[in-house]
Amino acid sequence: MSDQPVVRRRVAQHSISDTRYNDAKSQSQYQPYKDAAWGFINHWYPAMFSKELVEVVDGEGGDEDIIPSVKGIQIAGVPIALRRVNGKVFAVKDQCVHRGIRLSEKPMCFNKETITCWYHGFTFNLDDGKLRTIVANPEDKLIGTTGITTYPVEEVAGMIFVFVREDDFSLEDVPPLSDDLPFRFPESSERFPHPLWPAAPSILDEGAVAHGMHRTGFGNWRIACENGFDNAHILVHKDNSIVHVNDWVLPLGILPASDDCIEVVEDETGPKGMMQWLFSDKWLPVLENKELGLKIDNLNGRFYRTSVVLPGVLMVENWPEEHVVQYEWYVPITDDTHEYWEVLVRVCPTEEDRKKFKYRFDRVYKELCLHGFNDCDLYAREAMQHFYADGTGWDDEQLVSTDISPVTWRKLASRHNRGIAKPGKGTYGAVKTHSTRFKDTADGKRPAYFVDQVWF
Amino acid sequence: MSDQPVVRRRVAQHSISDTRYNDAKSQSQYQPYKDAAWGFINHWYPAMFSKELVEVVDGEGGDEDIIPSVKGIQIAGVPIALRRVNGKVFAVKDQCVHRGIRLSEKPMCFNKETITCWYHGFTFNLDDGKLRTIVANPEDKLIGTTGITTYPVEEVAGMIFVFVREDDFSLEDVPPLSDDLPFRFPESSERFPHPLWPAAPSILDEGAVAHGMHRTGFGNWRIACENGFDNAHILVHKDNSIVHVNDWVLPLGILPASDDCIEVVEDETGPKGMMQWLFSDKWLPVLENKELGLKIDNLNGRFYRTSVVLPGVLMVENWPEEHVVQYEWYVPITDDTHEYWEVLVRVCPTEEDRKKFKYRFDRVYKELCLHGFNDCDLYAREAMQHFYADGTGWDDEQLVSTDISPVTWRKLASRHNRGIAKPGKGTYGAVKTHSTRFKDTADGKRPAYFVDQVWF
Amino acid sequence: MSDQPVVRRRVAQHSISDTRYNDAKSQSQYQPYKDAAWGFINHWYPAMFSKELVEVVDGEGGDEDIIPSVKGIQIAGVPIALRRVNGKVFAVKDQCVHRGIRLSEKPMCFNKETITCWYHGFTFNLDDGKLRTIVANPEDKLIGTTGITTYPVEEVAGMIFVFVREDDFSLEDVPPLSDDLPFRFPESSERFPHPLWPAAPSILDEGAVAHGMHRTGFGNWRIACENGFDNAHILVHKDNSIVHVNDWVLPLGILPASDDCIEVVEDETGPKGMMQWLFSDKWLPVLENKELGLKIDNLNGRFYRTSVVLPGVLMVENWPEEHVVQYEWYVPITDDTHEYWEVLVRVCPTEEDRKKFKYRFDRVYKELCLHGFNDCDLYAREAMQHFYADGTGWDDEQLVSTDISPVTWRKLASRHNRGIAKPGKGTYGAVKTHSTRFKDTADGKRPAYFVDQVWF
Repeated sequence: MSDQPVVRRRVAQHSISDTRYNDAKSQSQYQPYKDAAWGFINHWYPAMFSKELVEVVDGEGGDEDIIPSVKGIQIAGVPIALRRVNGKVFAVKDQCVHRGIRLSEKPMCFNKETITCWYHGFTFNLDDGKLRTIVANPEDKLIGTTGITTYPVEEVAGMIFVFVREDDFSLEDVPPLSDDLPFRFPESSERFPHPLWPAAPSILDEGAVAHGMHRTGFGNWRIACENGFDNAHILVHKDNSIVHVNDWVLPLGILPASDDCIEVVEDETGPKGMMQWLFSDKWLPVLENKELGLKIDNLNGRFYRTSVVLPGVLMVENWPEEHVVQYEWYVPITDDTHEYWEVLVRVCPTEEDRKKFKYRFDRVYKELCLHGFNDCDLYAREAMQHFYADGTGWDDEQLVSTDISPVTWRKLASRHNRGIAKPGKGTYGAVKTHSTRFKDTADGKRPAYFVDQVWF
Repeated sequence: MSDQPVVRRRVAQHSISDTRYNDAKSQSQYQPYKDAAWGFINHWYPAMFSKELVEVVDGEGGDEDIIPSVKGIQIAGVPIALRRVNGKVFAVKDQCVHRGIRLSEKPMCFNKETITCWYHGFTFNLDDGKLRTIVANPEDKLIGTTGITTYPVEEVAGMIFVFVREDDFSLEDVPPLSDDLPFRFPESSERFPHPLWPAAPSILDEGAVAHGMHRTGFGNWRIACENGFDNAHILVHKDNSIVHVNDWVLPLGILPASDDCIEVVEDETGPKGMMQWLFSDKWLPVLENKELGLKIDNLNGRFYRTSVVLPGVLMVENWPEEHVVQYEWYVPITDDTHEYWEVLVRVCPTEEDRKKFKYRFDRVYKELCLHGFNDCDLYAREAMQHFYADGTGWDDEQLVSTDISPVTWRKLASRHNRGIAKPGKGTYGAVKTHSTRFKDTADGKRPAYFVDQVWF
Repeated sequence: MSDQPVVRRRVAQHSISDTRYNDAKSQSQYQPYKDAAWGFINHWYPAMFSKELVEVVDGEGGDEDIIPSVKGIQIAGVPIALRRVNGKVFAVKDQCVHRGIRLSEKPMCFNKETITCWYHGFTFNLDDGKLRTIVANPEDKLIGTTGITTYPVEEVAGMIFVFVREDDFSLEDVPPLSDDLPFRFPESSERFPHPLWPAAPSILDEGAVAHGMHRTGFGNWRIACENGFDNAHILVHKDNSIVHVNDWVLPLGILPASDDCIEVVEDETGPKGMMQWLFSDKWLPVLENKELGLKIDNLNGRFYRTSVVLPGVLMVENWPEEHVVQYEWYVPITDDTHEYWEVLVRVCPTEEDRKKFKYRFDRVYKELCLHGFNDCDLYAREAMQHFYADGTGWDDEQLVSTDISPVTWRKLASRHNRGIAKPGKGTYGAVKTHSTRFKDTADGKRPAYFVDQVWF
């Protein structure tokens, strides 16, 4: 940890531009964002950790080894089934063309190239989604004329990413995964210097290892995302163990001190997003609130920097320690649930490094950071949800100077998203009051990310 | 069980008529069916097993014997209270004219001719529903001028049937129960010959005994009903114990081989429905799917035949054994719940026969068929529900040749139903998000068929 | 208890005016009441018992004593946070102007004059609601220009009352608490004589002590309120222990015998409401129902009288014993939940009196009256709810002569309420299907009155 104070060159100016306010003009610039309750589509999202989709090899073990390695999830209202075959992961629309059954509810696969609907035997190619045959109707005219959408998959550093596309989004137009991942270093070191810490690793680096967790958050993904790079919510973390274990002394908050405190990145290629110039003279720590008699002495914090790129990926450099970076995703499931991903990445060239990182993750970071620290964020996001759930929050919020971060994000996301997801249709969450939902709830089951599988 | 193979006379022709597809023209022919989310009204439905409505005789036992034999249910959005008096069952609308209380929530009866609302004492005749008196207001002008709808009741073979009618459907127009029950044999034996098994019994036969169960299904009744006579869903049953206990070897499916594979019955009198010519040359078993490398040898199944009549009554002849027939009903409760009835009928002339049938039901059929086998159907129906719940499934489904069965059913049901039930009004399920529903759910109670009764 | 029979002067006339029927003309006179699903606003409501908002004094005890005495509730769709400081209770809108967080979810107070939002540090004055500062943004332009609504508070006899106002209802126009409390005695003794019992105490009397309970009722507040002064629902109480413990013999009901059986009070000042002339000759007990063969001999009841004033406060004089009065409130939370308050008041001049009353409350009244007796009312109200939940009940109900009470109430409430609450916005219950609600329900939590607090 770098404890030396940052050299600051400017005097804070609190009258920075008014772009932070949510007046009509500002709001009109992020209308697409306000419309994106179900998320942005035609983007790469994390689907599962690699270890969550284990391939069961025929002939090994007992009866169980005929269970195909299939699991179902939902992203941005799109039901998706994933299957691993010969190590490779395939993703297809998890909704049979026949009568809408989710293929993943009771996985059935007759060979390595297909997935079969367990109800009426409609069998689809994993690679192109075409209706290959129907178990008990092998000559039907429908065969070959229809199919289910497939989704490109990339697996890196122990994570499975899926490109969630609209049915008519051309596969030729699918961008590389790196376009939807955080800015990379040292490529960006000149553009975004960071004298206080070593260059952040990337999940795309050779030898990168990712450890983390994901769980369902009950609230809209945008509310969650905006919390991630929020510079004004230090209050919710002031009692966290990770802070006190390290004897950190946090400021009351961090204030923008310049109109260029955030840099928007909209290069023709590569990720679209924004970098906050934290721990530069463009943001100032607040050490005193006279009105409340609060004063911070001996500031001693962790230097970090947050940035965010489409479709909503947070990067916290130099956190929770040097050479480690935290990524977060707030993957929309429906308009009122999202899958919250917290991932720590480190480059581990040797097996020894990998073991050490895993041990530290298990014994320190999982408990103190991903839970202790981020649990507060998760709760705060859910607490905001009622205000925004009926759509009135976006108009009624009263923003302040620190809100330049979410407002900048909303505008850039409005300009650069590749599509606004339509409300889920014929799938989970499209009808929220369905009796199956009350049945599940009575049985103690919360709304969830994974499809419940049944084995008769 | 008849194990001899059926004699087949024709070669299969896979290019049967295109009526199976759900194009606009076909859909327009079953628009009334698509509108019947809350069910068909002015039909006979099973309400309870006789043993579920026991009459408590005055003077027997202790305090409890003043509890009237009253229970409340809901069918097609209509709340119905049933009371047994002197052995006879009466059914009335379970919604007081005064302020809408369900009479059955706290049964109160002062004599054998009436039922009284426990809240303000409105007392209705069981036979004609008229407001006979008000306990504490015996001279009110309203008395005699209003009342609650009554529903004709028939009790046969241990089952109570109710004719669920609209308030203004004339009692004179009520058809006999037999019009809403499956085709009967031997009357229909010439029309629908069945060389492979003995004539199916009917619940209306002398000496008929019905054993079965009913439970709430979480989904629309139509989705459930269409599964009942579906010839293409053998896949969901391939692992069922009843199959393997009997060493049955099932085909992959059964394909229609002729345009007249289904016969629609729309005689002026009697049940309206359709008979499938299963185990004739009009349907062919599928023994091979080359694409998937599947091949069935030594076919050894149970010969059965399915038919369905309005308002949605399945008959499976010769199932699960000779001389036994399985009936099923999918009684709409609301638009997203139905009561699933599974009933086995056998004619038992002697007390010995009755005992034997009961024993076999308890020890074999209940576990292996009504649960093991049909649990798979119940699950499959619920799995289809999300696709249809928002109304888009009917348009988006892509049907194949075997779907000639549901399509034929939809069309005939559209032509011959006696009325489309309106959405429930002022009763359970009309408002799905009511706080009472969340309260019940938090307490672990799923949406249910019977009214919860309270005794203070 | 006064057991002597009341002297009656008139003969019953059952053909009293037709105002009781809910025809179009009558309904038009209470349209505002039909519109008040979310309650009446700009009225005084009970918020908590004093003992539910304990002040924790700094320096006492251990760590816990920094927990501010803050609790959150919701009335008529308005989220309200209460804090006790130096004994005085303050009430403010429980919704941060910034991003809608409920301040009470994680109470944070830096001094005795303010309450701070735990998320971003927005700090509001308790007395005038102004945005005083922002913890980490002490010079933001927004400070001083905005704020949250405050609500006048009165604390009497162990109860905290809050004036729930619209944001733009002037504090200068706030009426005294007594305007929203029941009629007082002996001031009203001449107007409403009561020869059968001593003058009822008031919660505003010197030495008044209130004991009671409150709990959430699942249904609309109007349905609950109308049950309180309903003279026709004696049936639901006939088996209550409090009746039989006292060997009371109740009539079948009480019928209005005169057009002036209810007196509407609409004086320019003071409470607006209605007094029922029970136990006068304007109402007659019904002792016989020949049709049902019911006959009451030796009537031996408790003489009581019910009245109701805006915004829906029931007073039952002389109940459950002399010198005691029962108050009830049905405080709207949302349009389908209300907080049901049952409070017994007695003037206790000495400590000995206080102890005796408390003992009698704990050992007799709480169990037999507030639970045993009123549990029946609570259930009856919830049972009516389905009929009214979809809005059709108000039109479909068929009223009788005893319903002169609710109809009179509906009309006077329509004339004299100070405002109709708008549906909750950006707060609990505005969106009933939100995933947080399903999460809570799956966890066994029913919709509730108090805000769940979280301590990280």
